[in-house]
Amino acid sequence: MTIKDIAERCGVSVSTVSRVLNDHPDVSDTVREKVMKVVQEVHYVPNNSARDLVKPQSNTIGLVVRGVGNPFFTEVIRSIENAVGQAGYTMIFHQIASGADELSAGASLVQSKKLRGLILLGGCFDYSEELIAVLQVPFVCCSYTNSFGGLQENMYSSVTINDQKEAYKATELLIKQGHKKIALLLDSKQDHSVSELRYRGYQQALADYGIPLDEELVEETGRFDMASAYEAMRRLAKRRKDFTAVFAIADSMAVAAIKALSDEGWRVPGDCSVIAIDGITMSAYTVPTLTTLVQPAEALGKYSVQILLDMVEKKGDNCHIELETSLREGGSVCQLD
Amino acid sequence: MTIKDIAERCGVSVSTVSRVLNDHPDVSDTVREKVMKVVQEVHYVPNNSARDLVKPQSNTIGLVVRGVGNPFFTEVIRSIENAVGQAGYTMIFHQIASGADELSAGASLVQSKKLRGLILLGGCFDYSEELIAVLQVPFVCCSYTNSFGGLQENMYSSVTINDQKEAYKATELLIKQGHKKIALLLDSKQDHSVSELRYRGYQQALADYGIPLDEELVEETGRFDMASAYEAMRRLAKRRKDFTAVFAIADSMAVAAIKALSDEGWRVPGDCSVIAIDGITMSAYTVPTLTTLVQPAEALGKYSVQILLDMVEKKGDNCHIELETSLREGGSVCQLD
Repeated sequence: MTIKDIAERCGVSVSTVSRVLNDHPDVSDTVREKVMKVVQEVHYVPNNSARDLVKPQSNTIGLVVRGVGNPFFTEVIRSIENAVGQAGYTMIFHQIASGADELSAGASLVQSKKLRGLILLGGCFDYSEELIAVLQVPFVCCSYTNSFGGLQENMYSSVTINDQKEAYKATELLIKQGHKKIALLLDSKQDHSVSELRYRGYQQALADYGIPLDEELVEETGRFDMASAYEAMRRLAKRRKDFTAVFAIADSMAVAAIKALSDEGWRVPGDCSVIAIDGITMSAYTVPTLTTLVQPAEALGKYSVQILLDMVEKKGDNCHIELETSLREGGSVCQLD
Repeated sequence: MTIKDIAERCGVSVSTVSRVLNDHPDVSDTVREKVMKVVQEVHYVPNNSARDLVKPQSNTIGLVVRGVGNPFFTEVIRSIENAVGQAGYTMIFHQIASGADELSAGASLVQSKKLRGLILLGGCFDYSEELIAVLQVPFVCCSYTNSFGGLQENMYSSVTINDQKEAYKATELLIKQGHKKIALLLDSKQDHSVSELRYRGYQQALADYGIPLDEELVEETGRFDMASAYEAMRRLAKRRKDFTAVFAIADSMAVAAIKALSDEGWRVPGDCSVIAIDGITMSAYTVPTLTTLVQPAEALGKYSVQILLDMVEKKGDNCHIELETSLREGGSVCQLD
């Protein structure tokens, strides 16, 4: 069945059928309906899709963002989108809640949009071979890796900082300023994710410097949003008066923590120092400026795209890139006398 | 594994499985859970490609975001993506700098990705008939409208607040608190865009209350980013000591302004009140909390998608929706004695 056959059946010209198929506006509704009826009856595959069939690959990359309320991701998304565009690819964008299943969301996108590859921005740290089998295209874990899972290194790619090491550095920085009573603000101690890894780094730093772990100073927000961080910080400040510093595992949590401390009558950093990890634009404008370990947002995005396209185009191997943070010294940490 | 196999395993009909997979509401939670459990066990991925072939049109919508550094847009993007997904469409996402040309970026996406329609988030307010002719699909201006252009109302669609009116309201709120020396922080007085419209609202409010316009209190940032807003506010605070309030035309600018005032030794609101328009999450966590007119981010996104799909699917007419802000009273505005 060709476009000519369709035109004959409908009693219209070939170019009219073409205009209908290409959704041109200059066709009457009556003609459009008549043509579409025949197209559907005969299951006609229009030219462009026929071409897609011959050429099995699109030039489309998917981005699934897990955790829509994370302002740090905004900067990474920008970098990913730039790199995808510069490489001549198009990006399909899909956001899911922080508790949602990024693998099935990704798999569904891959199928329906014939994606060449997938970037997962935020996701679980404990994939298994069975779980990732649904994806069927190369993929890159952006900002996380398989720390709690059973994958072999050659089964997936990742671009991330070392969460445990960076949390160690943040805690150590406070210790070196004389702090011993250091509170920790995190989503959860046992989420098998970024929060748990940063908790480990905090614990390790305390242990290495001979500071006993005080579980009461570890406050879980339960959810990753600023309102929960604010409430958690207020709870902690009401319960305990003896800590002199807080390590919040994300900048957005630290911004909320500074506000909570202020509302409880604490001065930052006079009464309590605050440090975090991320380095979002907004936290450069808190009063005082947040001291934080800045994640290389642009590099995270750029390398994720580079690795993915290398796999997509040149059958490159899976690989793993670990990036470093850089310290942005603000005014939210002070030396303890 | 086909949808029929899944249905057999679950002991339900094929159409029930289909309804679950397509997220239809008319399925009981019990059945949904049962089906999804099997779907996950067998790693079934719905195959939409056959349907896509019969249907000559893509189900893809484009979103061009102009102004990548605008945190307010993050919340609108989330809403757009949700609405597009719920309608069964896919969103192609493209970000451009605030000075770039959204029409040619959009036209290029429409061509290469065979888009059904386009949402422009942020853009110029002065389109002409010739300029929009490149798009060739229905489009919606999200967060702006054709205030400075020559388009007839039936040539385009828009969902936006009334920038001039809302700026009037923000200025009036300060006046009613006794302020007369009110500074204005804006991108540019003459950008034929949001900044110019809000400048007009500010001027109008002053005029209506008999307060002479003092051009020296109107500070242009030149660019829309926090660093430029911070520098502009510091310049103004160094030059003039007599203003008692600032209206910043965007929340992110206001956050930077509060920081700048603090760095210049001004207390907010004691020495200077601050008000803005937007209502981003982050500005609820400044110290003090920013008083701001909250744009209905979710509604902006949702209605943009609704209007667009109505045009795409049902040949609906172009239309225009004007939304209202709501006041979020923070602690950044105080009454002048």
